[in-house]
Amino acid sequence: MQDQDRIYTAALIVIGDEILSGRTHDKNIAQIASWLQVQGIRLAEVRVVADIRDAIVEAVNILRARNDYLFTTGGIGPTHDDITVDAVAHALGVEVVIHPEARAILESYYATRGGLNAGRLRMARVPQGADLIPNQMSGAPGIQIGNIFLMAGVPHITAQMLAALTGTLAGGLPLLTNTIGGWIAESEVATMLGEIEKAHPDCQIGSYPFFREGRVGANFVIRSTKADHLSQCTEALCAALEQHGLAFERGGI
Amino acid sequence: MQDQDRIYTAALIVIGDEILSGRTHDKNIAQIASWLQVQGIRLAEVRVVADIRDAIVEAVNILRARNDYLFTTGGIGPTHDDITVDAVAHALGVEVVIHPEARAILESYYATRGGLNAGRLRMARVPQGADLIPNQMSGAPGIQIGNIFLMAGVPHITAQMLAALTGTLAGGLPLLTNTIGGWIAESEVATMLGEIEKAHPDCQIGSYPFFREGRVGANFVIRSTKADHLSQCTEALCAALEQHGLAFERGGI
Repeated sequence: MQDQDRIYTAALIVIGDEILSGRTHDKNIAQIASWLQVQGIRLAEVRVVADIRDAIVEAVNILRARNDYLFTTGGIGPTHDDITVDAVAHALGVEVVIHPEARAILESYYATRGGLNAGRLRMARVPQGADLIPNQMSGAPGIQIGNIFLMAGVPHITAQMLAALTGTLAGGLPLLTNTIGGWIAESEVATMLGEIEKAHPDCQIGSYPFFREGRVGANFVIRSTKADHLSQCTEALCAALEQHGLAFERGGI
Repeated sequence: MQDQDRIYTAALIVIGDEILSGRTHDKNIAQIASWLQVQGIRLAEVRVVADIRDAIVEAVNILRARNDYLFTTGGIGPTHDDITVDAVAHALGVEVVIHPEARAILESYYATRGGLNAGRLRMARVPQGADLIPNQMSGAPGIQIGNIFLMAGVPHITAQMLAALTGTLAGGLPLLTNTIGGWIAESEVATMLGEIEKAHPDCQIGSYPFFREGRVGANFVIRSTKADHLSQCTEALCAALEQHGLAFERGGI
């Protein structure tokens, strides 16, 4: 199932006016990004789109074609502004149908919670040909069709769905990282970082500055799929920082 | 300067492997979204792209063409992985040049901080024809060229640049919102919400469920550019919730 030499990529579409209005701070980008890394899949791009069918359709069709996997979050709930299922079905050119197993799950879940009304039944709608992604938390399942995974917008529920998918997707070698951080202005070490990266072709070094407690600092993240190369690059960076008399901490600050 | 009847839109490109790896939780989407609302500009779409020139170029050229404004965050620092200026210049088909005023700002800023080295001078590079966006915090300015605004990735610095731009961009009527929240399962009220929205054509109602303290709840956000319509729609929703015996709080929970 694994082809470790190739890089597997995923894209994510975050669907929801609440993110674009600034009202809700997205948590799913970081959550899904971290989960994908463990699966050996690289998150290549993210788009945040409004609750507008054509905007979702455009993003779905471009991103599913150029990535191994496409995830969406949001818009699969019971209300009128939940249009992800319809948009994905439209993008794929298939009908929206009631999934019998999803209906049964919802009937059972809502048996003690007031019964299955029209809004709740909306959550059994799927693009024709889809499978379900289990969700222990609120009954309403996620949806898989082809290489597309439709997940909840509420981060706790998304986490349940990711747990159900863990280990089921083909991936490559996970990207390994080391972090070195210090109260260092990245502009002091910019040339050094570039030279060390160039000398270690299987590694990338990212430099992430921050302001904290009124001081500037930076974390340098070394990434590679090869543990020995990662280690060599990390040691080269530590040696160079020492040589310049710059204090640092392994693991980052 | 204002044409209040038309809707002004902006797009945002968040540039950085650190967001796509899940290492850093983005704060700029919400920050810029909230700021844009006050300017009467709607954030229409967001893309998070890797530190790869062609990925940035593609996003820049699509989004600048179909929005009034395009903002980018990240990748304008001193290190080798900061390629936003080069990518935007490439997208626009212009050269990268040293901006004399940016150079002077950096020379002055670093005069007491070890002087202007090669890495620091990188932060004076701009696409030819660009203007600067002041940044009190770290010296290195943001960059404006045409309808594109290149901002820092560090949220505190981005905030400084937004402050410098406040009130300078043409916008329409700001979107007004009211929020009504309660310990209500959105699936109970899905039909009601759809009907009320339909009866108030100038308003949108968004439904945002959450899990908190082990209970389900939802906030309903009513949006309109017209204060009187917003108020009528809000009262209609409150009356309907009361009629169904559902407790709610104005302002949301």
